[in-house]
Formats: sequence, structure tokens, C-alpha cells
Amino acid sequence: MVPSVFTRYRSVINQALKQILESESSDIYKLLRYSMGWEDVDGCLTDSSSEGKAIRPTLCLMVSDGLSGTIDRALPAAVSIELIHNFSLIHDDIQDRDVTRRHRPTVWALWGIPKAIIAGNMMRSVSDFSLWSMIANGVACDVAVNVSSSLTDAYLEMINGQYLDIAYEGRLDVSIDEYLNMISKKTGALMSCSVGLGAILGSPELDDRNSFIECGRALGMVFQIRDDMLGIWGDEGTTGKSVGMDIKRKKNTLPIVFSLSNSSVDDRDVLREIYSDTKCGDKEVSVVLEIMERAKAKEFTWDLANKYGSMAIDALNKVDVSQSVLDDVEEVVNFLLVREH
Amino acid sequence: MVPSVFTRYRSVINQALKQILESESSDIYKLLRYSMGWEDVDGCLTDSSSEGKAIRPTLCLMVSDGLSGTIDRALPAAVSIELIHNFSLIHDDIQDRDVTRRHRPTVWALWGIPKAIIAGNMMRSVSDFSLWSMIANGVACDVAVNVSSSLTDAYLEMINGQYLDIAYEGRLDVSIDEYLNMISKKTGALMSCSVGLGAILGSPELDDRNSFIECGRALGMVFQIRDDMLGIWGDEGTTGKSVGMDIKRKKNTLPIVFSLSNSSVDDRDVLREIYSDTKCGDKEVSVVLEIMERAKAKEFTWDLANKYGSMAIDALNKVDVSQSVLDDVEEVVNFLLVREH
Repeated sequence: MVPSVFTRYRSVINQALKQILESESSDIYKLLRYSMGWEDVDGCLTDSSSEGKAIRPTLCLMVSDGLSGTIDRALPAAVSIELIHNFSLIHDDIQDRDVTRRHRPTVWALWGIPKAIIAGNMMRSVSDFSLWSMIANGVACDVAVNVSSSLTDAYLEMINGQYLDIAYEGRLDVSIDEYLNMISKKTGALMSCSVGLGAILGSPELDDRNSFIECGRALGMVFQIRDDMLGIWGDEGTTGKSVGMDIKRKKNTLPIVFSLSNSSVDDRDVLREIYSDTKCGDKEVSVVLEIMERAKAKEFTWDLANKYGSMAIDALNKVDVSQSVLDDVEEVVNFLLVREH
Repeated sequence: MVPSVFTRYRSVINQALKQILESESSDIYKLLRYSMGWEDVDGCLTDSSSEGKAIRPTLCLMVSDGLSGTIDRALPAAVSIELIHNFSLIHDDIQDRDVTRRHRPTVWALWGIPKAIIAGNMMRSVSDFSLWSMIANGVACDVAVNVSSSLTDAYLEMINGQYLDIAYEGRLDVSIDEYLNMISKKTGALMSCSVGLGAILGSPELDDRNSFIECGRALGMVFQIRDDMLGIWGDEGTTGKSVGMDIKRKKNTLPIVFSLSNSSVDDRDVLREIYSDTKCGDKEVSVVLEIMERAKAKEFTWDLANKYGSMAIDALNKVDVSQSVLDDVEEVVNFLLVREH
């Protein structure tokens, strides 16, 4: 069940996004609208089932709203972050050779790699472009520059994380710390930025921005660790991703990183063999799943996600925010922990 | 012969670029330094023969210098533009499947598409990041925001042009106007932005910024049309690109766009057949070259490049700039018209 905080800002986020991406007649915007889940491959409108959850802009608006009772100043940044996130999905799908996302063919699978690279780059430029409307919405120039640099820092960190993710491919000795550092960059940076910008835009005079940044980072960890769980134990019909794929593609996600260093000697040898071999079919997937069960990888992963969930809540308990913000964050944590897609 | 204006700012541009890209130990920066032509694939220093010409930052600094006698305020934008240009080269090479640039393997050819996409994205983020140092260099906050949005507008236009370029592939009926509109976006936008930002950063009170923007746009046209000439009639040893490739890959560059609409009926039929067929070897290249000769495609292309060169000079003749700026621009035009690589 999606928490109420997501429905609260959904229409204002969608309206702002659509205003930006529907105003352009250029052909390439068709690819952008498709990737947002609004249109099909022919440009016809679709229902909302292919849209993302808009977690990042929701967090940004939720915090701004909770601190100041307004979302106007934060809206351009929230929208910009969602566009950046979608830019990264378009490029990620090329990098990972994923042909399906949210039950539909990916952009590159439909239009080819060259156009998909350009579509991603365009999405990112649109994100930059839309950010500056914050000045018209009353954000002071120096705050606006600060917001823009924070976003740039977050992208830089995100890209560093994506690079590490790819660089870890094929390695059998990634430590849990290395893995956590990687996802903290890859997924945590932008989520952290969302919450941090919600705080600074809601309340520019705010003293303790760091607690918000910390909260967002922890939420990002919960999100990614849950994603890793779904990549192994999720239900394909619900996730819209091919389950078992993370094993078949030998992705270094938390359950396997943990199992590689916490299984019996025999199991570890089998795992290493499977993860070294190029072939990994349904039979190998079953073997890996059994080893993960013996290593209690699911329990470990679940516990760690919960630990980060508590950290997210604790971070905001330290600062002067209303009970409603704390309730919202708790609702978000509880949703991220158990979401099925 | 490279004009003196390029050597005048070369060391200050290089120093600033290196300060940014050499300070990071992260592995991915190796790919960025490689793509700048400073290091080989193993990270060892190389001579300067693989470096680009840094045309865009040079134009930016030249104009700032000519208007105000200083380059400090313009330097961060100049560097940012050069990084953006290099970001686009990394992604372009993936899109075009080019395996060689400046006599060396391209980034994707060495490290694969996923890492090359990330390296390009990283280069772009570094560009955004480095831009903000203009505030420390004395640029007022509102001017800085203006500069940042101008750059964003220029990227958006550039990406639109890249998309058109790809969308035109395979079409045999691209008109000369469509082609000129495409290169004006793909190549003209960033060059125009370089000159325009040089003007606004050199002299924030400047009335007639548009003439500078116009000058830069025309320089971009000269640059791209010359590039098209080199892609057909250049010398592989000098250009570092496989010559004939533009014909073999059936790229819609100006000489072919012109020949397709200005040859005899018979020649046009042959051209259409070659450009429709998937196979295009050395024999077909020779046939295409002969048809281009009969159509006087080289003369047409050369005349058009010259026309844009005059437009670039005329644009600045209208405004109040010193003779030295006019001389510099003329020197740049004369170089762009005859450059061999």
C-alpha cells in the first residue's frame, strides 16, 4: 500500500513535469514522455501504471512542506531531481542492457543506443533548464546557486557510484563495506540531495541541514537494499523486472556480496565457480538461491535495511521538526522496506 | 598554421583543465584524462599531439580579453564549455561507432560502452561543477545564473541538433536548409555560447550581446562545413579520421546533401542507389566522389563556408570592439576555413 504522502504531492509533481515535457514538439521529446510512462511508443497516452513512484520529488516537497507549510520554492528542484533520476534510468538501461522496465521495453530497446543516449542527455538538460524557475518562485539568487551546486555534487557522486557498480562487475571479492559505499553514492546521493534541498528550500535559515541530508542518505540505502532483495526474491509480475536476472547477470548486489563472504567453504567454492563461469541458467540460479538460504542472506539483508530505516528516522528526531514530518518519514521508511516493486 | 590567438590562451586553459581533472584519484578520471589526450590507456603522460584545439574556450577568452583586458571572470565558463564539448565527443563516438579519434582508439573502443557513457556523464558533471568557481572569480550572482542558463540552453540546442543528425540518417531527401538548421544546433550552439559568454563575462554591461552570439554561430557553421569537407576530401594521416568514412557510413554531410539535390538525373539515381544499399565499399566511394565532382559539390561547400566566415566578421564590425578583436576573429575564420584536421 503506497503511503498517503505519495498521493499528497503526486498531482502537483505530475503537472509540473508534464508542463515541461509536453510543451515541446521536437521528436526527441516523444522518447522522454515514453520513458516517463505517459505515452506508448506511438505517442498515444497511456494509463498511469507505467509511471514511476516519484519518491525523490515527494521527499523534497514533503520536507519543505513540513518545515514551512509551502512547496512553491522547492517544486522546481523537486522536478529537476525527478528528471535527473529518469535521465539516469535511461542510461542505466543501456549500460545494463536491460530490455524491460516497469513492464515495458526500455528506450534503447525500442529506439536503439544512439537515440537513447541522446534522450538521456536531453532529459538531463531539461532538468537543468527547469531548475532555474526556482528564482521566479522566490528563491534568492545565492540560495539558487547553492541548490544548483548541491545538485551537481549529488550527480557527480551518483555517477561515481555507477562507475564503481560497473567496475565491481566480475569481481568476487567485493566487501560489504565496498558495496555499501557504492550504493551510498549510486542511490544515496540523489535521495540525500532531495531531502537536503527540501530542507534548505523550505527553510533557508535552517541550522541543521546535515540531519536532513543524513536522513535522505539512509532512505536511499533502504531503497537500494530493498531493490537488491526484489532482484533476487521479488515477483516478476509485480516488479516488472526479470527476477533471477541479478543472479543470471552476476550483479554484485548485497545478498551475493554477503553470501560470497559468509557461506561455508564448500558453498563459497560453488558460488565462486558459478560467478566465474560465463554460463548461468535456471539450474545455477536455483543453486545460488539455496546457498543464499543456508547463509541466511535474506535475513542479513532485511536486518540491514531495517537498520538504515531506523537511522533515517533517528536523524530527524535530533532536529526541531513537527510530528507530522516525523510521521511522514516513518511512513516512507515502512513503505520502502516492504515495497514489492 | 595555427593562429597566434590559439597559443595565447593555451597554457592558461590547459592549466585550469588539468587542475580540475588531475586532482581526482577515482579510476573514472583516468578515462577523462585519456579522452583529453593527456594520458595513454595506462595512465602514463603523453605528448600534446592528441589534444584538441580548444577552439571554444579560446573564443570565449579572446572576446573577454578584447573587451575588458581580463580573462579571470571568463575562465571558469571557458573551461566548462571545453569540458562539455569533450563530454559530447565521448558520447558522439559511441553513437557513431567511431573507433578512432585524433589517431587514438576512442574511449568506448577501449573501455566499452557502459563505462564510456558514464565517463561522458562524469565529464559533463565536472563541467557543471567547475562553472561555479566563476563566483569566486568575481562574477555577480545574477550574472552567474544567467551564464549557467545560457550554457544549459546551448546544450539543449546541441542535443537537439545531435538528435536531428541521427534522425536524418538513412534519409535521401534532407534539404540544404534542414541540414544547415541541424548543424547550426549541433555545432553552432556551443560555439555561439562561447563567444556570447566571453562577451557578457568580459563586459557585463554590454548592450549588444547578440552580435557576439551571431558571430559565434557563424564560426560554428564554418567549423562544421570544413569538418564535412575533411570527412570527404581530407587526408586520413592528418585528420586522424578514416577518410571516405562519411561516404561509407552514408552520413548526411553537406557535400552529399548538395549532390543529392543538384546532380543530373542519372547521377542522382546512382547516388540514391548507393545510399539506399547497405553495402558501400571503396568502389562505391569512388563513384560518389566522381558524382560530387560533376556536381561541383566541393566548390559549393567551400563558397558556403566562406560566406559564413564573412558573416562572422561582419557581425562584430557592427559593434564597438577594438581592432585587435576584429583581427583575432579574422585570423580564426581564416584558420577554420583551411584547417587540415
